[in-house]
Amino acid sequence: MPKVVFSVDQSKPMSQQQVPGHNRWHPDIPVAAMVKPGDVFRVECREWTDSQIGNNDSANDVRDVDLSYAHMLSGPIGVEGAEPGDLLVVDILDLGPVPQETGEVPGQGWGYTGIFAKANGGGFLTDYFPDAYKAIWDFNGIFASSRHLPGIRYAGITHPGLFGTAPSAELLASWNRREQALIDTDPDRVPALGLPPLADHALAGQATGDVATRIAREGARTVPARENGGNHDIKNFTRGARVFYPVHVKDAKLSGGDLHFSQGDGEITFCGAIEMGGFIDFHVDLIKGGMEKYGVSTNPIFMPGNVEPRYSEFLSFIGISVDHDTNTNYYLDATVAYRRACLNAIEYLKRWGYTGEQAYLLLGSAPIEGRISGVVDIPNACCSLYLPTEIFDFDVRPTKEGPVKEKRGQCAVSS
Amino acid sequence: MPKVVFSVDQSKPMSQQQVPGHNRWHPDIPVAAMVKPGDVFRVECREWTDSQIGNNDSANDVRDVDLSYAHMLSGPIGVEGAEPGDLLVVDILDLGPVPQETGEVPGQGWGYTGIFAKANGGGFLTDYFPDAYKAIWDFNGIFASSRHLPGIRYAGITHPGLFGTAPSAELLASWNRREQALIDTDPDRVPALGLPPLADHALAGQATGDVATRIAREGARTVPARENGGNHDIKNFTRGARVFYPVHVKDAKLSGGDLHFSQGDGEITFCGAIEMGGFIDFHVDLIKGGMEKYGVSTNPIFMPGNVEPRYSEFLSFIGISVDHDTNTNYYLDATVAYRRACLNAIEYLKRWGYTGEQAYLLLGSAPIEGRISGVVDIPNACCSLYLPTEIFDFDVRPTKEGPVKEKRGQCAVSS
Amino acid sequence: MPKVVFSVDQSKPMSQQQVPGHNRWHPDIPVAAMVKPGDVFRVECREWTDSQIGNNDSANDVRDVDLSYAHMLSGPIGVEGAEPGDLLVVDILDLGPVPQETGEVPGQGWGYTGIFAKANGGGFLTDYFPDAYKAIWDFNGIFASSRHLPGIRYAGITHPGLFGTAPSAELLASWNRREQALIDTDPDRVPALGLPPLADHALAGQATGDVATRIAREGARTVPARENGGNHDIKNFTRGARVFYPVHVKDAKLSGGDLHFSQGDGEITFCGAIEMGGFIDFHVDLIKGGMEKYGVSTNPIFMPGNVEPRYSEFLSFIGISVDHDTNTNYYLDATVAYRRACLNAIEYLKRWGYTGEQAYLLLGSAPIEGRISGVVDIPNACCSLYLPTEIFDFDVRPTKEGPVKEKRGQCAVSS
Amino acid sequence: MPKVVFSVDQSKPMSQQQVPGHNRWHPDIPVAAMVKPGDVFRVECREWTDSQIGNNDSANDVRDVDLSYAHMLSGPIGVEGAEPGDLLVVDILDLGPVPQETGEVPGQGWGYTGIFAKANGGGFLTDYFPDAYKAIWDFNGIFASSRHLPGIRYAGITHPGLFGTAPSAELLASWNRREQALIDTDPDRVPALGLPPLADHALAGQATGDVATRIAREGARTVPARENGGNHDIKNFTRGARVFYPVHVKDAKLSGGDLHFSQGDGEITFCGAIEMGGFIDFHVDLIKGGMEKYGVSTNPIFMPGNVEPRYSEFLSFIGISVDHDTNTNYYLDATVAYRRACLNAIEYLKRWGYTGEQAYLLLGSAPIEGRISGVVDIPNACCSLYLPTEIFDFDVRPTKEGPVKEKRGQCAVSS
Repeated sequence: MPKVVFSVDQSKPMSQQQVPGHNRWHPDIPVAAMVKPGDVFRVECREWTDSQIGNNDSANDVRDVDLSYAHMLSGPIGVEGAEPGDLLVVDILDLGPVPQETGEVPGQGWGYTGIFAKANGGGFLTDYFPDAYKAIWDFNGIFASSRHLPGIRYAGITHPGLFGTAPSAELLASWNRREQALIDTDPDRVPALGLPPLADHALAGQATGDVATRIAREGARTVPARENGGNHDIKNFTRGARVFYPVHVKDAKLSGGDLHFSQGDGEITFCGAIEMGGFIDFHVDLIKGGMEKYGVSTNPIFMPGNVEPRYSEFLSFIGISVDHDTNTNYYLDATVAYRRACLNAIEYLKRWGYTGEQAYLLLGSAPIEGRISGVVDIPNACCSLYLPTEIFDFDVRPTKEGPVKEKRGQCAVSS
Repeated sequence: MPKVVFSVDQSKPMSQQQVPGHNRWHPDIPVAAMVKPGDVFRVECREWTDSQIGNNDSANDVRDVDLSYAHMLSGPIGVEGAEPGDLLVVDILDLGPVPQETGEVPGQGWGYTGIFAKANGGGFLTDYFPDAYKAIWDFNGIFASSRHLPGIRYAGITHPGLFGTAPSAELLASWNRREQALIDTDPDRVPALGLPPLADHALAGQATGDVATRIAREGARTVPARENGGNHDIKNFTRGARVFYPVHVKDAKLSGGDLHFSQGDGEITFCGAIEMGGFIDFHVDLIKGGMEKYGVSTNPIFMPGNVEPRYSEFLSFIGISVDHDTNTNYYLDATVAYRRACLNAIEYLKRWGYTGEQAYLLLGSAPIEGRISGVVDIPNACCSLYLPTEIFDFDVRPTKEGPVKEKRGQCAVSS
Repeated sequence: MPKVVFSVDQSKPMSQQQVPGHNRWHPDIPVAAMVKPGDVFRVECREWTDSQIGNNDSANDVRDVDLSYAHMLSGPIGVEGAEPGDLLVVDILDLGPVPQETGEVPGQGWGYTGIFAKANGGGFLTDYFPDAYKAIWDFNGIFASSRHLPGIRYAGITHPGLFGTAPSAELLASWNRREQALIDTDPDRVPALGLPPLADHALAGQATGDVATRIAREGARTVPARENGGNHDIKNFTRGARVFYPVHVKDAKLSGGDLHFSQGDGEITFCGAIEMGGFIDFHVDLIKGGMEKYGVSTNPIFMPGNVEPRYSEFLSFIGISVDHDTNTNYYLDATVAYRRACLNAIEYLKRWGYTGEQAYLLLGSAPIEGRISGVVDIPNACCSLYLPTEIFDFDVRPTKEGPVKEKRGQCAVSS
Repeated sequence: MPKVVFSVDQSKPMSQQQVPGHNRWHPDIPVAAMVKPGDVFRVECREWTDSQIGNNDSANDVRDVDLSYAHMLSGPIGVEGAEPGDLLVVDILDLGPVPQETGEVPGQGWGYTGIFAKANGGGFLTDYFPDAYKAIWDFNGIFASSRHLPGIRYAGITHPGLFGTAPSAELLASWNRREQALIDTDPDRVPALGLPPLADHALAGQATGDVATRIAREGARTVPARENGGNHDIKNFTRGARVFYPVHVKDAKLSGGDLHFSQGDGEITFCGAIEMGGFIDFHVDLIKGGMEKYGVSTNPIFMPGNVEPRYSEFLSFIGISVDHDTNTNYYLDATVAYRRACLNAIEYLKRWGYTGEQAYLLLGSAPIEGRISGVVDIPNACCSLYLPTEIFDFDVRPTKEGPVKEKRGQCAVSS
């Protein structure tokens, strides 16, 4: 087992850990542990909300979650010799839920997928599903199944939703500037267009006093992916993947968390993955001056792992950038197109007896692939969603006889 | 060899074929041939511009292409017993370039990828590459290589860019209405937001007189994908795929063309695939009342084929919905995010000696995968582009030593 | 289309072609056509028995086939500059049945799989299936299905059963010596242990007179694989594969044929593939002195293609080196172990309503994988056979309810 | 974490565990723990020799290993309701090395591959490599690498080498009978043709007194695979696999061990896998009367897992049933053919600087595929070995320039 450079006691919130992590991006958060290029090490992680969600049959905890705690990250891990302009080479050697433990905290033998309420978080289909819902998943080895989604079982593509390096002060300032400009175009929108810095429940690692106060005031929220990596929610950052992160500050300051037992492309329910705490094992190295050498000025480059579950048969749904409800055309809008592909898939699954909410929860967490198919055929972008048929324990393919509609229960709802 | 129900003499334009095809969508285009459920048959196709592009080293033909001829489709093929509300089950049994022929027309041993000029067609990166460019690809069995893109060779995922059923009169009217509404928001935009019906060079199959005139006046342009299928440009409609098309008119009236020897997800250069004429072999069947049975109200469903080239190692590029040039944030805009992923890939490839145009042409035509990775992490959508490393005859992965920049020529440019 | 360097008129036997091929291995068979390193070219082929088998419902033609004609090869193709000790690099760019033709000869829209009678050819399970049987397969694009095997349809992994370079005189002599020594251990065995040179129906290409007579007298039979390549029956020599053949004579003299539309590992029914005439497109190159450079002293090296059909779910059968009928143990005998795995698979398939003959024909031709699993656990070798479940149109997996036994017809039998 | 029904303290030999396991097959070994159909549970395992091998640079421990202790199995696990004639459905949910531990015992952060000496165990190539050798592998997450095999790193396909149900008394007797008959054909052979019952170091679980004595006297050795499953060494019994074991006694009595971090098809060095102790998580169920229902009279059926590492490029070696050293032909002998394929691969790897021993150790443990290619082309069986190129950190493919021969050290040797 590799040395643990960041450890977590899952019975305590992140703020009460011996070495606490952080939930904002800021260059001045102190390094929690140093490693060297070539090192192999383990980082332990809390579930992204700091474990506010329970293993039960009510979605009230999802409805009422306090998002100011998110994402609760482990780190920063300093890498000796890393300087701005380098590429930090990060190999994901292993990751999984909390090892050898069963308990009340997500990652201790179970995880959850949540549909967030429009009034508190929202999601990709929030206009169609404005309320909070939840599915609990039990982990059996590499497999997940849910009492809230009968008939489905699949191997997880475990991956971290969020890892990244610290931004420089200049980069951080530019983030805050551009996001505030976007928010200012519709400041009262629900859900919000973006999330500005927020001092409430900001956690700044081992920083104290004025530094901590400044971090809380200036620190960028962790929700979006940005130039430091961040919340990519790319399911292919799985075991065996190699990521090349831009380095923006001395020692790189690698942080992360938001581990997922599984996720579909798009993570469409907002917290669409199967969320959990757990561990991740890394190997790190440096390409000195790599950003300039390889033309990496914005986002990381990566090489996906080769041990994902393999499927050869898919049922695929297409969407185009048209709002069919109002017959409104959007111009090459891949977001609208993928949303329609998701809605088409949900409609199909409802014919087999799932509720719309169940289908939505499934698409967020199962290993579906979301593809940009065509983005040049004016005016309609075309996206497609690939659903592996093997994850169902019944034959889900279209036949002349039509679908077999059965009672398939319901997910956890809010009261 | 299956019976040919729609044949093409590649030495003549579509309008001069014994049974001409069409280049607009309209319910009144007469059936060119009837088939029965269970039949296996072949359809021969012209290249989508009706073969305006030549096998040479100038991109002037791309620059000056007359797009009013496009897409030149074969059909309609009527299917006995098909009625509105059915699903037409279409198996793609085989497809390829023009068999046993070498010649001057795309598909006769060669094909091309074009970057269209901003003033005449545009493309996904038209603001970055406003001029016309071209690459010619030679076909050697299942492999394509190009004198304009040295160091690259890959097996084609042959597929049709465009197939679909005829719209009903009502559906056609609703298309024209919603697309005109979009165009009206910025009618002078270059490139246009959409393309309204256009009588110039409209071809209505075997229709004549008033019917032909009406088809030319009302017929929808073939560029976008819509509720009848249409120009999906989904590379996974490859051999072995099964597509379930909605039926909107009696006999279904299946038409198509725009065959591609290969294409990357997004077909980003607009004519980003390797374009060719050729043949396609189908098996068809019906699911009576299938639209209601399976909840298919808008787009087709499909099951992709299982004989695509298989790659296990990819270099992947990430983009987010930020215009980094101006530090402007867009709200969950997957189109912007994928555009940035493409630009990041191009920047990387330039470090190895390719010109930006060459890299752009490569990404349009090679079997890259374009993924919607995250679309809920406000405000940044996150998309990723997977480039298989095996298509290069050199090691294209990042190393400590940095890239080997070599002279790699140039594509065809316009004068 | 590449230049055809060896052409075949499928209405005539090989001996009557303008440039006839050959059916024995010998260094003195004259070159039929010369190519250069770097060339791309096409070779047309007859079905391996020179088309003795018909598209009908009787297996009498299989029972009575004259094997002295086999294998009917196209070539030899000389490669300029090739010298003994080189490696001939052969890329398989494409191959398939006879293009654009429907007719009476295997490869003209159809092919067959045969179980040879014990008295005339035999096969892997000849002690269990001593009579002749046959299944006719119809080709629909890349798919094969058979009226003799209802419920099954799969994409072909097209490949040549047999290609190789000419042996030197010394190598040929050593083959004849060692094979005769084996035959001499049991000269009257049925089926024979090996096949010595046979003048009957020997075809020596364009050789005439004394040379032809000598070739007929000395030439090695084409049945086994040897140091020149030869009848590998490796299904992974498919499109996209690269083979490195040892060169034993000046100009290498590449010959081949025995094209298969599909085959399972082991080709267990002897003529277990789906046999056909057709074409194959090659690219060739040379590695000078490659045999010594890479330590290739006996068999070719190859890199398989990456466009095989892809399956993710298999039903797998195990066999060990025990004859369970007599409870006899063999020592690490992988041949016995694989035979038992085949018999176990047949027993399973019979529970679903197939006859044993049908199951045997299926395992020979479908894309099954045959694996050496363990060969060191004394005394039992262990082999396994992987049957992709997707090729069946019913669910073939074991369940608590037991198999659904239906009437599934019968293959062609001999009278 | 699932309940542990069989636990192991890795600091103690199996005989000193609270509930000891066993190392012979016998129906009377008492059940160690009972489970029910539908249960999920964990079994902990010792390395197969009971941890006689150390993490060091000498192969003396391999040379001197006492094989009478092998295989040290965990179990038997009784399954309620299981009766002779049933099929026991076993899902492998997870498995791996000893969790969270680093230490001196194989599985505690490391494993080994051994070439056994001809005089003590032997192996597939023992006539070519008669001495003992060893490679130590370090585990980093899902990856293995070895100081004794520089330039190589791969993801493990973790799997159990050996699991099975208890034989009935009749079945056991028939094993002993047929194996003794084989041994009797050459009783003094080294290595032996088979291993008869051996009382030395026989461990009979919780049996005591006369029962233990009888088990030691009658119990079958665990080396070969037989009708109860047993030592299959099938690398595809990996996570996600489902195995259908025949039940021969009441409660089925499932036992196993011999966990492998990785293995190549054939496990050619005898202890060719990367050997380790560790854990395995199961789900079990029953198909009542399944043996008759599905025609399973001898070996288990299985469905392999879908989360193996995926490779798309292989270098493949061919062997035929000829001993080229003596120019001796064997009749359709797949064992000889695969041996030659292995020797050909070793010769190739030596050209790059590996010693023959290193290459042999690599082929035993890396995820190579061993295929039965042709077994009907008299007299030569043809087997092929697929080596994934991605496991090397250099380009191992043949080129015109020839291989780059570097110093690549040496494995552990015996003194």
